[in-house]
Amino acid sequence: MFISTQELEAMAKLTRVQLATSLPGPKPICLIGTRSTAGITNLAPFSSITHLGSNPILLGMVTRPDTVDRHTLKNILVTRGWSLNHVTEEILEKAHQCSARYPTGISEFDETGLTEAYHPNFGAPFVKESPLHVGLTLEEIIDIPSNNTKLIVGRAKFINLPDHTLSEDGSIDLPKLGTVASTALDTYFSINEICRLPYAKPTSSP
Amino acid sequence: MFISTQELEAMAKLTRVQLATSLPGPKPICLIGTRSTAGITNLAPFSSITHLGSNPILLGMVTRPDTVDRHTLKNILVTRGWSLNHVTEEILEKAHQCSARYPTGISEFDETGLTEAYHPNFGAPFVKESPLHVGLTLEEIIDIPSNNTKLIVGRAKFINLPDHTLSEDGSIDLPKLGTVASTALDTYFSINEICRLPYAKPTSSP
Repeated sequence: MFISTQELEAMAKLTRVQLATSLPGPKPICLIGTRSTAGITNLAPFSSITHLGSNPILLGMVTRPDTVDRHTLKNILVTRGWSLNHVTEEILEKAHQCSARYPTGISEFDETGLTEAYHPNFGAPFVKESPLHVGLTLEEIIDIPSNNTKLIVGRAKFINLPDHTLSEDGSIDLPKLGTVASTALDTYFSINEICRLPYAKPTSSP
Repeated sequence: MFISTQELEAMAKLTRVQLATSLPGPKPICLIGTRSTAGITNLAPFSSITHLGSNPILLGMVTRPDTVDRHTLKNILVTRGWSLNHVTEEILEKAHQCSARYPTGISEFDETGLTEAYHPNFGAPFVKESPLHVGLTLEEIIDIPSNNTKLIVGRAKFINLPDHTLSEDGSIDLPKLGTVASTALDTYFSINEICRLPYAKPTSSP
């Protein structure tokens, strides 16, 4: 079926949100952990995590001023650090629950029963139940004028993961880690490796 | 295992690239189709596709000046339109082959055997073998000073997909569509739905 510009514009708001958030296909889903100046910890699910560079390792994530992510942005602006935690099937429901609009004084750790964990010399809280932790510090925040969103750019300072999930070539074995994927606002997937393909080079003849 | 800042910096370049591109977890993988002013079509795989907004529907993707994506950026700057095509297991090897550094005058369609398809009043080529097509026009290009990358922001003008893959609530049934996920530079996954979870609300008591 063909959906025209006019049909997209005429859609009910939530229908269009579900469609728009499905368009990239399978997406990451990570819990972002921060801490306010008052010491209140915060956890928010993000599906807009993107690799931006490798030297140094930079990751981006998109935030809107009008969603629960606002606590994350507010905390990052002050503390300049955050944690990235992979989500597995075991903690999926608790991770999803972190998208609820809790008031500022409430910690999603307390509300969901996820456990705070810490790494040396780093203030942001990690999720103990998550198998992969990345500690990031703020590199820059970039305005996206089109729709008043912001790209938060962070630099990976350290990574913690189970030994047997890091391959010799540097890639992470996500199925072994148990990391799930997401799409739309509410749908989660397990993943199965199809293949790894060799570095692509132009062939000499078509 | 804990990987420190010093250990990250001391890694071999390709090892760190594989690690960095694994950190978000499962990622999208889409073929982006463009056309040059000389009429040469181009296809490039992108794994940095991100939902930015729903009214209008805005999608972002990150490009580097020094990769094969450069043809995509160059074409978009001139033609201001591109196609987004989901990748299925059937066309995965051909999609991956599009990451090879072909010269400017060569079309990845010709080299891989993927078939050009078109939608009315839209110049960019689509991949006939792909089950989901989105036609996008340029909204803005945003510099990411941290590492000289750019965020290309596009507005979805139309969508084409099989009838039975669009749910009543607007979400797309990705497993039915056959869309694959990716991670690192070279690894691809099939997906299986674990669950859909209801809209999360704060609970009255912890």
